[in-house]
Amino acid sequence: MSLKAIKYNNGKLEILDQLLLPAQSKYIDVNGVEDGWKAINKMQVRGAPAIAIVGCLSLAVEIFDETFDTKQSLKQEVEGKLNYLVSARPTAVNMKLAAEDLIVLANALSQDESVSVDVMKERFLKAIEAMLEKDIADNMAIGKNGADIILSNIPNGNSVKVLTHCNTGSLATAGYGTALGVIRKLHELNRLEHVFCTETRPYNQGARLTAYELVHDKLPATLILDNMVASLFKSRRVAAVVVGADRVAANGDTANKIGTYQIAVVAKYHDVPFYVAAPFTSIDLTIPSGDRIVIEERPDREMTHVGEHRIAAPGITCWNPAFDVTTADLITGIITERGVFKPAELSKKVEEILSANNK
Amino acid sequence: MSLKAIKYNNGKLEILDQLLLPAQSKYIDVNGVEDGWKAINKMQVRGAPAIAIVGCLSLAVEIFDETFDTKQSLKQEVEGKLNYLVSARPTAVNMKLAAEDLIVLANALSQDESVSVDVMKERFLKAIEAMLEKDIADNMAIGKNGADIILSNIPNGNSVKVLTHCNTGSLATAGYGTALGVIRKLHELNRLEHVFCTETRPYNQGARLTAYELVHDKLPATLILDNMVASLFKSRRVAAVVVGADRVAANGDTANKIGTYQIAVVAKYHDVPFYVAAPFTSIDLTIPSGDRIVIEERPDREMTHVGEHRIAAPGITCWNPAFDVTTADLITGIITERGVFKPAELSKKVEEILSANNK
Repeated sequence: MSLKAIKYNNGKLEILDQLLLPAQSKYIDVNGVEDGWKAINKMQVRGAPAIAIVGCLSLAVEIFDETFDTKQSLKQEVEGKLNYLVSARPTAVNMKLAAEDLIVLANALSQDESVSVDVMKERFLKAIEAMLEKDIADNMAIGKNGADIILSNIPNGNSVKVLTHCNTGSLATAGYGTALGVIRKLHELNRLEHVFCTETRPYNQGARLTAYELVHDKLPATLILDNMVASLFKSRRVAAVVVGADRVAANGDTANKIGTYQIAVVAKYHDVPFYVAAPFTSIDLTIPSGDRIVIEERPDREMTHVGEHRIAAPGITCWNPAFDVTTADLITGIITERGVFKPAELSKKVEEILSANNK
Repeated sequence: MSLKAIKYNNGKLEILDQLLLPAQSKYIDVNGVEDGWKAINKMQVRGAPAIAIVGCLSLAVEIFDETFDTKQSLKQEVEGKLNYLVSARPTAVNMKLAAEDLIVLANALSQDESVSVDVMKERFLKAIEAMLEKDIADNMAIGKNGADIILSNIPNGNSVKVLTHCNTGSLATAGYGTALGVIRKLHELNRLEHVFCTETRPYNQGARLTAYELVHDKLPATLILDNMVASLFKSRRVAAVVVGADRVAANGDTANKIGTYQIAVVAKYHDVPFYVAAPFTSIDLTIPSGDRIVIEERPDREMTHVGEHRIAAPGITCWNPAFDVTTADLITGIITERGVFKPAELSKKVEEILSANNK
């Protein structure tokens, strides 16, 4: 059974406290918006999609048992509380977008005279629950599309070794994961021989979170350090690399966690196919290429310390870019819930899908 | 002034306690063989050349103020104590080789009837001091040869950015360093614009030791993580990579700290020249190629913990190769104190030098 970091059922919400991972696996109750705000602010939940889902679900918990006299009072409450939730981590854009969508919905429902206050509340709750279900369904579609493309060149019945970087699993999404969803799907199909995950310095998301998920789900897995990828490819036949994406530009250039570009270069040298797995919404046609993506540089302390423990010589200057851009020529395919795209055909295919949606 | 981790003068020996680095810079007295054995065993000194030098110098300290009645008693003492020193870290082959050489010398001197006991002791002490001097002189020659080759394609007066991996400096050798010696020389020539050093997981020798040396010597330096090399090469013009070597095979394949091969692949992709700097004795013509080099795999704990602090999820399997082999086609040149060799010409040139030595 794949790890569930977010458990919601009929107005009850529990989340896995990521601050205690990997040492301790403890679920905490989120009994309303106040708890949701704290969980996001203290980073008990992290990863942009997961933050948005937990924030909105905490609102669902809050209004689940509440009775509203008027649609206006319901609308005012959800609008105020959504804005409050956005303030928990202002840089988490998914929470902001989800809040905007729900506020639009609340407005529409409150203006629709055919809708009673009870129906409005029910539809509002359903919309939030649908967000959770849609993200998981999208991830499962990404998983299926990714497993299909990776296995397309593999003889029937043979299983594969794959490598992933950072954490893109149940701990970063509503559940199942994007790149890690592809790996989960390979395992469900009995076609996963082994998965290698990189430590992912400086925050060690691979060693802490991905390794935790792989152990939890009992996948055949091995942790390697970021500097071992080339040695791995030389000594073992790895069928594919699958990583996530923060943003995909129109030409296929992809911004993702620092170290991704280096893995792509090393994969190219060893003829290992390199896939990016991400929600369709990560593709941003308004960005022509990766050159336009500004790379955030983060504080030295993330590199020089592990917790309170100093690991680097005092006085040394650090360079700490949070992510890098993998150029499209290194990418074999971009796996989304709407299909797998080669970088060269990406913008044409995406435009086709978007214009079909608008018809 | 370049960092001196081993200070010897007239029967007095002090070493920088590497267990306290980088937090604390403290020299400890080594007052004889007992202290030398402990310093090696407790890893207050590390790096194969440095261990051998400190071991032998601790013997020099021990006999410096001692009076011997007969050559036989001197010979017996040094033989016994050298064997004892070898036992401090049995895998450190340089100490064993140095002990063998000094025992051969002690035998020869004790059998030479023209040599008195006082002259024997004096010659024996000089031989040990010469080891220290020769290693530093060799490193300075490596530094000069390396700086010359790196600058050979750079317009006069222009300075260069270089990258190094792991620690190959004063903390791993008798002094000055091999790859780090090349970088020190570039700095002395006012041709070093900037040096980047990698963290070098899992033991962080780059972050702890190389960064310490660079800060000490006031070189313009920046620490990066092992997964940032490709991003560095994409964003900045780096003139060369210089790394050390554990062993160089006849065809130029080079075994070195894990991560070296990956840097070489990434350097090739970005057209950055890749140099190996090592003592001439590191070249072993009896090994035809890197395929013959067995790669030691080390305990998981080195990867899963930093000190007592667990950083990886419990239960995850690890792969922890201590080094890797960089294939000769990725190496621009092998820098030694006897010259710089292209991999293709390596075995011919080395044989010429060895046969000239034997004439």
